[in-house]
Amino acid sequence: MTQAAIAISGTTRIFGMFGDPIAQAKAPGPVSRMLADGGVDAVLVPLHVPVGHVSATFAALKAVPNFGGALITIPHKVAMAQLVDRLSERARLTQSCNICARRADGLWEGDILDGYAFAESLLHHDYDPNGKAALIIGAGGAGSAVAAELAMRGARVSIYDSDGPRAAALAERLRQAGYSAQAADVPVPVAHDMIVNASPTGMAGDPNSPVDPGLLTPDMRVAEFIMEPRETPLLRAAAAKGCAVSYGADVMDFQLDLIVDFFTRTDS
Amino acid sequence: MTQAAIAISGTTRIFGMFGDPIAQAKAPGPVSRMLADGGVDAVLVPLHVPVGHVSATFAALKAVPNFGGALITIPHKVAMAQLVDRLSERARLTQSCNICARRADGLWEGDILDGYAFAESLLHHDYDPNGKAALIIGAGGAGSAVAAELAMRGARVSIYDSDGPRAAALAERLRQAGYSAQAADVPVPVAHDMIVNASPTGMAGDPNSPVDPGLLTPDMRVAEFIMEPRETPLLRAAAAKGCAVSYGADVMDFQLDLIVDFFTRTDS
Repeated sequence: MTQAAIAISGTTRIFGMFGDPIAQAKAPGPVSRMLADGGVDAVLVPLHVPVGHVSATFAALKAVPNFGGALITIPHKVAMAQLVDRLSERARLTQSCNICARRADGLWEGDILDGYAFAESLLHHDYDPNGKAALIIGAGGAGSAVAAELAMRGARVSIYDSDGPRAAALAERLRQAGYSAQAADVPVPVAHDMIVNASPTGMAGDPNSPVDPGLLTPDMRVAEFIMEPRETPLLRAAAAKGCAVSYGADVMDFQLDLIVDFFTRTDS
Repeated sequence: MTQAAIAISGTTRIFGMFGDPIAQAKAPGPVSRMLADGGVDAVLVPLHVPVGHVSATFAALKAVPNFGGALITIPHKVAMAQLVDRLSERARLTQSCNICARRADGLWEGDILDGYAFAESLLHHDYDPNGKAALIIGAGGAGSAVAAELAMRGARVSIYDSDGPRAAALAERLRQAGYSAQAADVPVPVAHDMIVNASPTGMAGDPNSPVDPGLLTPDMRVAEFIMEPRETPLLRAAAAKGCAVSYGADVMDFQLDLIVDFFTRTDS
């Protein structure tokens, strides 16, 4: 990534990243530089929006004509899906919104890029999820986004969550939209082409793998949503078994491109 | 001014410049660069806050912990004086606020720097207003700020406005605070040490002078609040008469320093 100079003037369009907390947010720097690189007079600034304040904050900023949109992180993704004027299909299916922007018609459009960026990273590695059987571990925000995205791209998705009803509700929502989805009672990789960990298991020193490593086989692709550590217990086991692996951290780069594209798109 | 790189990350503190319109605002670029120069992880971004929305916008942003303060321009200065928790004496006298910040006690402090910067520019030219007789033309936002500031610094101020009651009300407010102030029925420079134009007369191609140039004498200092054109009809006439002159545009540089100091001050 080049290091273009970020410039601010009276004409600069402002995008905000909403989260609580926000200091850990990675996107404001690179997105602001990518906008500058692209000759776009705009910046993405962090806004620490406390729980309970996202509705009032968004309402106030919608009235600011040079406020162009928001990137949304924990804990506001579900609330923002209710606050925008229209949602992409993936955001409707996920019931979650991690980005929104004001479009030419004055309406606010929301999307969720977590699963989209994940799918783009798979395609970049020449892995097409169409027709594949995918086991997704975790039916929270990330798991919902990945399950919806893979289902929309033609995968048959099985969803496991330690909260069984949560997995069942997500699978039911995807089926009602016409996609192939089912809840899995146990996180067993057997008979799946792809295993995706979208649960916290293996994060930050947790030595556990979300699936039994002994059940992984070399024909499987194993993908991780956790960004730190880069090498989770699951990915170490998968690599040892000869599986193709996808790193959570790599998805972020794809998401940055999608963020800039979403903020600067004018065709809708 | 050096051209330090403006950096934005998740930890960046955000200051907003409120105005309607805002695209013409000059401060966001230089203030953001000066903050970067000083090693402060903060930026000033333009926020086009429409009339009628400043209260809701400020309320929403007050709830954002990394929102540090606002610079305020037309038409929000009077409203913001009502919305902050405490005002400097100069802002109370002016009934106007062009800057505010969250202080260590969590309260929002407001000030008005227009007159303060003007006085600093006079001191920079070794001109002390203490004891001087000053005629101020215009009792609007700029005129009020200059009149209050010069009065607080020991000048005897005469205030002329084509709206006589407006000048009288300002003079009365300053007198009640213990300062030397009176309304002037006519804009006649005679017997004044300093003439300050804080009215629009002479702006943008207007060939008029706010005072009769024939009444200027070489012992007078003539100051202009208009920034464009730099050389107003009044200043041209004053220079021709041999008066010392002060340019409106020069005041802006002093104001930039005061803005950065106000935003980064932690002792109150």
